[in-house]
Amino acid sequence: MENKEPEPANLPDGKTFLLFSDDMDKAFATFVIANGAAAMDSPVTIFFAFWGLNVIRKQTSSKGKDLLSKMFGFMMPTGPDQLKLSRMNMLGMGSWMMKLVMRRKNVQALPELIASAREQGVRFIACSMSMDVMGIRKDELMDGVEIGGVVTFLSAAEQSNVSLFI
Amino acid sequence: MENKEPEPANLPDGKTFLLFSDDMDKAFATFVIANGAAAMDSPVTIFFAFWGLNVIRKQTSSKGKDLLSKMFGFMMPTGPDQLKLSRMNMLGMGSWMMKLVMRRKNVQALPELIASAREQGVRFIACSMSMDVMGIRKDELMDGVEIGGVVTFLSAAEQSNVSLFI
Amino acid sequence: MENKEPEPANLPDGKTFLLFSDDMDKAFATFVIANGAAAMDSPVTIFFAFWGLNVIRKQTSSKGKDLLSKMFGFMMPTGPDQLKLSRMNMLGMGSWMMKLVMRRKNVQALPELIASAREQGVRFIACSMSMDVMGIRKDELMDGVEIGGVVTFLSAAEQSNVSLFI
Repeated sequence: MENKEPEPANLPDGKTFLLFSDDMDKAFATFVIANGAAAMDSPVTIFFAFWGLNVIRKQTSSKGKDLLSKMFGFMMPTGPDQLKLSRMNMLGMGSWMMKLVMRRKNVQALPELIASAREQGVRFIACSMSMDVMGIRKDELMDGVEIGGVVTFLSAAEQSNVSLFI
Repeated sequence: MENKEPEPANLPDGKTFLLFSDDMDKAFATFVIANGAAAMDSPVTIFFAFWGLNVIRKQTSSKGKDLLSKMFGFMMPTGPDQLKLSRMNMLGMGSWMMKLVMRRKNVQALPELIASAREQGVRFIACSMSMDVMGIRKDELMDGVEIGGVVTFLSAAEQSNVSLFI
Repeated sequence: MENKEPEPANLPDGKTFLLFSDDMDKAFATFVIANGAAAMDSPVTIFFAFWGLNVIRKQTSSKGKDLLSKMFGFMMPTGPDQLKLSRMNMLGMGSWMMKLVMRRKNVQALPELIASAREQGVRFIACSMSMDVMGIRKDELMDGVEIGGVVTFLSAAEQSNVSLFI
């Protein structure tokens, strides 16, 4: 009776990441793990919330925004190239050093990792409530990003055997 | 034989959050997800550890505390209204802006989200070891909060299909 | 037909922690939960990435390192005794206070918790890519630490019912 059936097929095998931070190092870690999981054929979802939205912003367009949204938009980084390290950033020197080291060691930089995730079919979902609160519009985000809320996140996470808040 | 049974009923479907931070934005995210999960009928547990305890403190009462506990108690925020943003706090201006935006956009503020979680039956567990280390007594926390340790946390997490450290 | 079989034996029961941070409080939380889980007979894995590597560094040896690696090595804490609190560190006074309180309350300090995790058979895996980027060599880490990459992490996480990014 030992060999009944392990039926692992019944278990969810997705990987879901809630990227809440716009620290360069945390965004980097998210995409390295996401790409690894996608290469192992897991369905992968990245849900970008709050500061995490900055990772997939393409530019600031303050046209037609109210003052508070303009202020938030102005002060936050736009896109992967402007992110800072979570520590030892030293007015940008740390993130500059990190990028330099990565290039020397032939480690993929964040923009490449993001492109690679897109190619591998990783789902990018921007948190609608965060967009609302921070005054970020869909056209300010990378193309092809879905918009979703907490139900979208939870549904993806429930279909996953690894869910991380980063 | 394909349609044997998927028996998803056997799988745990709880949601467990270890709220370690007292950043306003992270506490906000925790309660938004917790309330969403409770609305989807998942059993939800929030385990408040370390700085996360500040989210459910109601007041500082330093009576009868030793010096170190008094110092910790004095320097930490008490309750949801005193929390700061994890970044761009700018001496409080950032969290003030965030609250203002939320009110304008009719997004529930943190105190409402907490009340709503209570009403929906979300379990609130305060980490006993953190309380001990930080010198926080049960009567300084919101009413109806359970006290528990690592075993309590792990038991809840093992009965969950989504567990996040926030 | 109700009592068919719950077959919980088929479900993974590991616990996997990705320790990304070198904050004293977060490292402490990681080891408290890891030790608790090990005591409950779960297979436990801690994957040390980025700043988390500092938790298991034993010393800085800059011999033969390039300039950037030397700089990183010099500026980062080496080992559990040099870590700082994630907030209220106050130039080291906060972490000093925390250690003092822990000693008074007979809470195990981080070095003891780490030793205890080793004794209980918790797997320590250092992230190879992080080591490469930060210029940390295997001989700078505690003895008995494995080296692994994203596949190693994901395999452990897939065999777990609780995986946390800390």
